[in-house]
Formats: sequence, C-alpha cells, structure tokens
Amino acid sequence: MSDPVSYRDVTVTGGFWGELQARNREATMPAVEARFRETGRFDAFRFRRTWQGGKRPHIFWDSDVAKWMEAAAYILQKQSNPRLEQSMEELVALIEKKQRKNGYFNIHFTVVRPLMRWKNRDWHELYCAGHLIEAAVAYYEATGRDRFLRCMVKYAAYIERVFMIEQSAAFATPGHEEIELALVRLWRCTGQARWLALGEFFVNQRGNNGKDKPIGGEARYAQDHLPVREQATAEGHAVRAMYLYCAMADLAAELNDEGLLQACRALFGNITEKRMYVTGGVGSTYRGEAFTFDYDLPGETAYSETCAAIGLALFARRMSAIEPDSRYADAAERAIYNGFLAGVSEDGTAFFYENPLEIHPEIRRRGERLPITQRQRVFSCSCCPPNVARFMASFGDFLFSRDGSTVFVHHYAHARTAHIEMETQYPREGRVSLRLLGMAGRRAALRIPGWCVNFSCSAPGELDRGYLYVDIPGDDFSLDLNFEMPTQLIYAHPRVYGNIGRAAVMRGPVVYCVESVDNGDNLRALSIAAKAEFTGGFDALECDGYRLEESSGLYVGIAPKAMPERLKFIPYYRFANRGECEMAVWVRKESII
Amino acid sequence: MSDPVSYRDVTVTGGFWGELQARNREATMPAVEARFRETGRFDAFRFRRTWQGGKRPHIFWDSDVAKWMEAAAYILQKQSNPRLEQSMEELVALIEKKQRKNGYFNIHFTVVRPLMRWKNRDWHELYCAGHLIEAAVAYYEATGRDRFLRCMVKYAAYIERVFMIEQSAAFATPGHEEIELALVRLWRCTGQARWLALGEFFVNQRGNNGKDKPIGGEARYAQDHLPVREQATAEGHAVRAMYLYCAMADLAAELNDEGLLQACRALFGNITEKRMYVTGGVGSTYRGEAFTFDYDLPGETAYSETCAAIGLALFARRMSAIEPDSRYADAAERAIYNGFLAGVSEDGTAFFYENPLEIHPEIRRRGERLPITQRQRVFSCSCCPPNVARFMASFGDFLFSRDGSTVFVHHYAHARTAHIEMETQYPREGRVSLRLLGMAGRRAALRIPGWCVNFSCSAPGELDRGYLYVDIPGDDFSLDLNFEMPTQLIYAHPRVYGNIGRAAVMRGPVVYCVESVDNGDNLRALSIAAKAEFTGGFDALECDGYRLEESSGLYVGIAPKAMPERLKFIPYYRFANRGECEMAVWVRKESII
Repeated sequence: MSDPVSYRDVTVTGGFWGELQARNREATMPAVEARFRETGRFDAFRFRRTWQGGKRPHIFWDSDVAKWMEAAAYILQKQSNPRLEQSMEELVALIEKKQRKNGYFNIHFTVVRPLMRWKNRDWHELYCAGHLIEAAVAYYEATGRDRFLRCMVKYAAYIERVFMIEQSAAFATPGHEEIELALVRLWRCTGQARWLALGEFFVNQRGNNGKDKPIGGEARYAQDHLPVREQATAEGHAVRAMYLYCAMADLAAELNDEGLLQACRALFGNITEKRMYVTGGVGSTYRGEAFTFDYDLPGETAYSETCAAIGLALFARRMSAIEPDSRYADAAERAIYNGFLAGVSEDGTAFFYENPLEIHPEIRRRGERLPITQRQRVFSCSCCPPNVARFMASFGDFLFSRDGSTVFVHHYAHARTAHIEMETQYPREGRVSLRLLGMAGRRAALRIPGWCVNFSCSAPGELDRGYLYVDIPGDDFSLDLNFEMPTQLIYAHPRVYGNIGRAAVMRGPVVYCVESVDNGDNLRALSIAAKAEFTGGFDALECDGYRLEESSGLYVGIAPKAMPERLKFIPYYRFANRGECEMAVWVRKESII
Repeated sequence: MSDPVSYRDVTVTGGFWGELQARNREATMPAVEARFRETGRFDAFRFRRTWQGGKRPHIFWDSDVAKWMEAAAYILQKQSNPRLEQSMEELVALIEKKQRKNGYFNIHFTVVRPLMRWKNRDWHELYCAGHLIEAAVAYYEATGRDRFLRCMVKYAAYIERVFMIEQSAAFATPGHEEIELALVRLWRCTGQARWLALGEFFVNQRGNNGKDKPIGGEARYAQDHLPVREQATAEGHAVRAMYLYCAMADLAAELNDEGLLQACRALFGNITEKRMYVTGGVGSTYRGEAFTFDYDLPGETAYSETCAAIGLALFARRMSAIEPDSRYADAAERAIYNGFLAGVSEDGTAFFYENPLEIHPEIRRRGERLPITQRQRVFSCSCCPPNVARFMASFGDFLFSRDGSTVFVHHYAHARTAHIEMETQYPREGRVSLRLLGMAGRRAALRIPGWCVNFSCSAPGELDRGYLYVDIPGDDFSLDLNFEMPTQLIYAHPRVYGNIGRAAVMRGPVVYCVESVDNGDNLRALSIAAKAEFTGGFDALECDGYRLEESSGLYVGIAPKAMPERLKFIPYYRFANRGECEMAVWVRKESII
C-alpha cells in the first residue's frame, strides 16, 4: 500500500502533457464553459422557475457543471486565472444561496419536479451530489476557500440522514454510482469518518437491498445483480461500473477490506483480460452503454465511452497504490493514451462520447444505429467534455505514490514535485531522466511498461511485478531510463472474432490506426506485409503492405490479387481530425491463416 | 422473346424437386393451413365484427391466405386432393358471399376500419387485391372453376374505376407493389386488355404522381423516387422492388416497351452485379427491409428476406423469356437453391423471414437487433410461409420457354411436358438426360449454368450468351448433358468489405456453409487451406483447413498459431436444422493477403 502523490504536489512542466494541459486550459475549458452558458447550464443554478427556449434543466446538468468546476479548481491550484475564478465564485455563491435549508441541492428536482425528490434511483440525484462534492473538495484543496465545501458537507449530512439514518428515500442505492467515491474523498479532505461510513454503506447496500428495483428490469445495468464482494465480472453500464469499482478500491484501501480487494482484483482482471478494447476503451454496446460478455469487442459498433476510459484509468490508479503491480498502471496508460485522448479533438473543443475502433461512413446510409464519425461541440448528454477537462487537469495524480521506503513512478511525463524532477517526451519517445532529491536510503520503483520489451536504466535495479526497484544512494540522485519503443504488431485473442486475421499497430503505449484520408478508401482491402518494417515516428508510421485489387464481378472464382502498397498509420487518438473518413485500428495481416 | 411454358404443362416427376414438392404438399401446406386457422386468418373471411382472442384481422391477412390458395390451386392442378379442395371452396364461397356489391373485397377495411378504405397507400389494400387476383387466376387455370375469378374480375373493375377513371382514392399507386403483375396475369387469363392497361397505368404513375406521399418520408422505400423508366438502381423495400420489376418486365414483354426493358436490364444488372448476396438473397438491412447501396452486403445483419429471393427469381424468370441470356436464369437459380430454399426447415413446417449469411448466437446477448437464428412456425407478419408454398408448387414455370423455332431449357429438374422428358438428380449432380419428342427441325437451347466451367453434351451445339443451341434432328431425339460439378471457391468483390480475406464454397448452384455443430464454435478462427481439395458430395463437403489456437492473453505480440483441422460444409439452405449454433457462409482463406 502506498499513498498517491496528489496532483497538488505535482507540476507538469512541459512535454506531451504540458501541451495537453495548456490546450485544456486555453481551449477546452473556455469552450465547455461557453457551451454550458449557451445551453443554460450555468444559468440553471439561478433556480428560475421559467427557463429560456424551453430547455428545462436536465437531471444531470448539475454534474456537467460540477465536473467543469472540478477542472477549474485543479487549474486554479496551479496558476491564477481571474476569469475562471470569477465563474467559480459566481457558481459557488449561487449554490450557497439556492441550497435548501435541510442541505438538499439539486436543480432539476427543485425547479422542475420538486415532488419527485429521492423517488427514482435512476434519476441521478446522488450522482449529481457526488460530482458536486468532488468539485467542492477540489476547490477547497486548491484554494483553501471552504464556502462550497461547507455547502456540500451540509448536503452530505442530509444524504446521510435520508439514506442511512431514516432510510426514507424510495431507494437504497443510486442508479448511477459516483457518490460513493466522492464520500471517500470527502472523508480524506475533512477527516470526518462519517463520510467514509456513508460511502461504505452505499457500496455494501448495492445488490443487497430489496428496495432497489433493477433499472430497466436488468439488475446488471447498475451493478445490482450481486452484492459487490461477489461480483467477479464487469457488468452493465460501463461508466457506472467503473465509478463503483473506484469506490470499492478506495474502501478496500481505507478499511483494509480483503473481500473488497479480492473483488476489485477479479473485476480488474475480467476487464483487462476479457472485456477491454486494445485502446483501453470499455463498453461493447450502445444498448445500456454496457459491458456484454467475454471477448465481445466489436470495432464498428464499439461504445467505448470517453468517460468509461477515464473511469478505468481512475480505477487502475487506485489499484496501483494498493499493490505494486504494473498491470494496473499499464491498463491506465492504455486507456489514457488511446480511449481517453481520442475523446477530444486536436483543437480541444469537440468531443466524442463513443469511440469506435473502426469507421466506414458509408454504412451509416443503412440507417442502422452506429457511433457518430465526427466529434461534436454539443451533447445533450454532455458528461464527457467536462470529464475530459477535469481528467486532463488532474493528470498529475497518476504519476507517483510513496510509502515509508519507496517512491513509485507509475507514469512518465515531464513533471516535478518537491523531490522529483522528471524530464521526458514520453510517449513520443522512451527516454526519461529522473532526479531524486532528499531521498537517500530509499528506493525508487520505476514502472517498466508492459509494452516494453527492452529497456535500460543507468542504475542497477531489481524487477518485481513490473517495477524496477532502484536503491537511491544519495540526496541528489539522477538516473536515466530508456524504454526502447519500436513499433509493434499486436494480435487479439482469437475469441475476439472481429479481429481475427488482423493486427493492431502500437508504438509504446499508443495505438495507431489507418484512415482513408491517408490510405484511400476501403481500408479492409489493405493488409500489413508479413515482415513489415515500420518507418517514421510518433506522429506517423509507415510500412509495407498490400491492397486487394478490385475484381470486375461481384462473385468470382479467382481470389483478388494483392498489389504492394505503403500503409500509413497515425495515432488512434488523433483519428477524425481531418474530415469524415474511414478509420480502422485492426488491419488485416499477411500470413495469419 | 419466347413464351414461358406454364407449370400446368410441366410435371415434376421425381428427383430433387419431386421431394420438395411432396414435402410442400404433405407438410408445408397443412402446417400453414393449420397455423392460419389457429390464428383466425381463415375465419376472418367470415367478416365477423367480433374476433376471437382480440386478434383483429391484420391489413395483409387476405394476402397470406391468398398465397396459400394460389399454392393450393397449383397442387390441385396436378392431383386431386379433396381436403385441399374443400378448404378452397369454403374460402371461395366466403369471398363470393362477402364481396361488396361494388366489387370491393378486403377483410380489414371492411370489418376493422371501413372508413379508412383507399386512404393510405401503405396499408396493403391493392397488395391484397393483387394476391387474391393471382390466386383466382391460378384456381381458374387449374380447375376451370370461375367463381373466384369472376369475383376478382369484378374487384378489378372496381379498382379500375376508383384508381384510373375516377381517381378518387387518396393515392395513385400502391405502397406495396403486387397488383401490377397480378393485372398482367389477369389479362393473360381473360384476354381482356383493360387489365393490362390498368397494370400499365399503375406502373407508369409510380414516381410520377404528386398524390403519392413518400412512405416514412422516403420515396425510395416504395420505389417512388423516380419514374420507373429512369430507375437504374434497386432501391427501397426489396420485396416491393422485386414485384415492381416483375410487372415492368411483364409490361416490357407484352407492350414491346423498349424503355421499360432497358430499365429492367439496368435494375437486374445493378442487383446481380452490386447488391445481391452470394445466396441470391437481396435486402441488406432490416431498416425498411431494404436495399442499401452498392457492395453493402453484411452477413450477420443481412435481411435477405425469403420473399425477396422469390421475387428475384420471378423477375429473372420473366427476363429469361424476354431475351435468351443465361445470366437471368443463373440469378434465378442462385436465389432458388440458396436464399429461397433456406427459408423453410428440413421438415417443411418452419420458416425464416430473414436469412443471414452468418450467425453468432452469442452476440444476441448484446441486445442489439439481429436476425433470428431458428426458423419459426408462427409469424405475425406471415408473408413468407405461403409464398414458399406457392413458389414450390409452381416451380414448373421456371423450366422451359419456347418460340417458333426453339425450345429453351432454363433449369434442370426431373420433369416432363408433352414434348420433353428430362431426367436428372440436379442439383445433387450435373448429369441431365433429355428426350425431345415431336420437335424435328427445331432447336433446343440448353442453359449452361454460369457456375459450370466444363460440360459435355452428346449432341453438337453452338454456344450463345450462355445457351447451347442444338439442332433437333428427329421427332424422338435424346441427348445427354453433363455439367461437371467440382466444389469451387468463390470470392466477393473487395468492396464487399465484410467478405475480404474470405471465400465461399459452392458446388454447382448450391452455396455451402459451416456450422459450429460440425466444426466447433468460433467459426471465424477457421480458414480454408490455400490448396484445399474437397471431398464428399452434395450433402456434406470436407476440406483441409486450419483453426487459430487460442492465445492466453487478450492482446499479445505473437500472432496466433494455426493448427490443421478438417472443415465440414453443408448446403447453406440446410443451416439451422440441428439446433441453434454458429453459421458462416464466408470462411477465411489462407493466402489472401
């Protein structure tokens, strides 16, 4: 068990994440704020009984804005930003003003349907509360200002009364998890054990309480099918599942609960060994935005929601701190550099909710249900854009953890803390320089990424479960790591039947794809040569391959001829930034018979 | 131009079709009748204002029963069957009794919604009328009894008044074509030119009349997007399209209309060169049960309705008589032995509406929309079962046509006419013995099937557009044909992107498939060896192939290993007769790179 080093103590100083965080501050945050203002989401906090243009506040508008606020808090912790601060203060003042005396705060169930409060577990009240609590904690921790936090503590106390003491709500646990992990966070911030107990209460009630009706008749949808300790396969709505598993991991850590930890291990194993896209995306169908069954990972109809990739990274991060095994950070890395990053456009202002692994725009003409092919600025359900923003801004949370004797480096980025200076262009390249200050006699545990076959380290070390343990001989100790980053071909388990005969291209943690804008259309007619050697670098890779020639007839007796062709790959997360076109992660491979 | 030889003059005397027709008479017809009686479809002809069990007569129940009646007529023409005759007479008497004085006959729009008569072009009134007319003609031609025909002539006269003379209906053309070809048939039976003119009127109005609202806002759905002579691509609901094209071909032949003929050629070319499954199925999506766009032929989500395969065969048969080019009968043959025959179970009593080319039962657990995997005895929309029955019973229509100098043999079956005796086990094998009587000085034109690479004929002949023209030297002339029938691998055009890297197995006109009941599950892990040689015969084929071994990890750096395995294929049309299992027509093929 190690303690995560908070983003507050970590400053991203440049490199890949420096650029991403700058874009997040300068493009994503203002764009999301502007859209939220345009759509009435900010004004909704005024609790007017009439609303413009007939757009009544949606049940989860509170959470959309709360995630934006949480992102703003993270950004304000790093640098002053009067405009952002003004928006924050405006919102906090409204929350303070509009919160009911008993502590309740929810826009929709005050303004639109006040009689339906705590009536339906799928109406996201506790989910909104959870995001508000997270935002309040973040704002307090970032700025020391406690008005928002006080409001949310009051709200939490009201929730405690309704759900734990009086049990007077129409349901026992929320249909969409989030409050659980938020309460653990509130406990960590305030030191008040009642919030940990309340979070534990919600987690333990799930699948255990007859009051909770299965949503849509399907208990798996909201992970109600079994008590949480008995759950061993990832089921139902993927984002909900991830947030639950985060809370389970938090509680396992805080309470030393071996039963919860075993369940977390089983769930993590099931996800990463059976139910995760190569991009770290999860959720195989739009029906319930859900997990389906082992090895069911269709590419064209993948759901793979941006928020679910975030959720998987958050779950994995928690597990990394519980036990030092690189498979956790490996999964987080896979999700972050692929399924998550794909959710936002190159300019930071447009977003994917779903992230398919294959696109053929033409088949949309069938009229059947398929993911959209271009990122959008507007979502009616807009959970992903502010989630992207808060995740970007708090990425520092992922890098390090420490216990009495060891500092763990889980991820590599150009960043520093008071005791660590890390310089790297990772994931663009595999070289990392580390300077460790004031840590003589301790150990550094450096994750050797799962994708890495050959690496070198300037200091001797011992490898255990994917971490290289290096003794720190002095108080100013530098070491250089180099993860060789050749382009690799990856093959899926043959039960993933859509990927049979195909390979994916990875370079370091980054998954690549082909787009028709580079390779001409009908991408499935392409194949990677048996002994393909890749040229190029991070931004674009090339290799030898083939394209099947088009025959004259619809059905012919002669196999189509393959003509040599160079194939060009770009990072998957950058797909769909040059107009609508075909895209594929999995490409046919010569010699798979 | 040649005249088709009617089924009335053709007797199937044994072989493959002898068995099918016996099954049709003995199993399918009683099963469909029993289901129709159970569901109230027969009783509905009593026009009771109340109906049992709340099942009110559906808008197309008339047509369900009419198709069954048409099948019964074909069967009665061949042999006496008192039970069938009794059911027919019972229905005819009811029709005569319940027909309105003005000639109108429709159960739903008399009993359920009398005020909605001729109000909505998608409510199948004219479609039902068309099937009743076809049944009446068939019954008259089979038995010489004219009560039913008289009723339908009266109904046709009423339709002529409402639609052509007064134009008082709310629409100009039916949303579901069928009346058009039925009216041509009525003209051929009665010699009354007004029915040909009325059929022509409906065809010419289509896409030309502002009164007709696009169904569901989509003019293509019912082929209204252009005047018929300008249509060059098969669009919209596949069965509707086929029935329209049948009428267009009929009119092109009857009226010597070159514009219509050119449109028919273009449509036929578009279907068979761009929009047809290898099984002869058509309709690529359940959305609108429709054509989509060129080369869009997904296997798992194929619609490929049984009735649409029937429709394609009927259209192709008409084209065969217009111009002697074997591509027409080739397409009919493809549809008949695959997409059509698959529609009915081995025992003749259960039916597929949709005929996918690939089934993975597991993916149904996603909850997404997929074709059913087992034939059913009951359809609420039950167009296919009686359509199968009438098609089976009238198959003799397909075999021959003749003009002054030539007798055409389009298809091969164990059958005879007054002048032709044909013996063959086709399609089980390729040997055909023909005896031609009383035709000295004429020519026989024998179709050489498109799938056939090597054939022999005991008499010299000249090949032109797929027909072997043989002079008939005497009045009792026998000849032997042998179509070599090796198993063949077929490749789809590489624009059919789901089939890339895969091959289909055909033997003669019959498409084969693999099922997991024979080959174990995860059929996509199988591949056909590069130089596979097939053993076995019609019922089952085997060849060398491989199965990819299952790796331990979800994503690994080593391509899965292929282990040798024998693959077993059965005729596609026999799939899903041994319980629910995986099925695939297109199988991966070694050496397609």
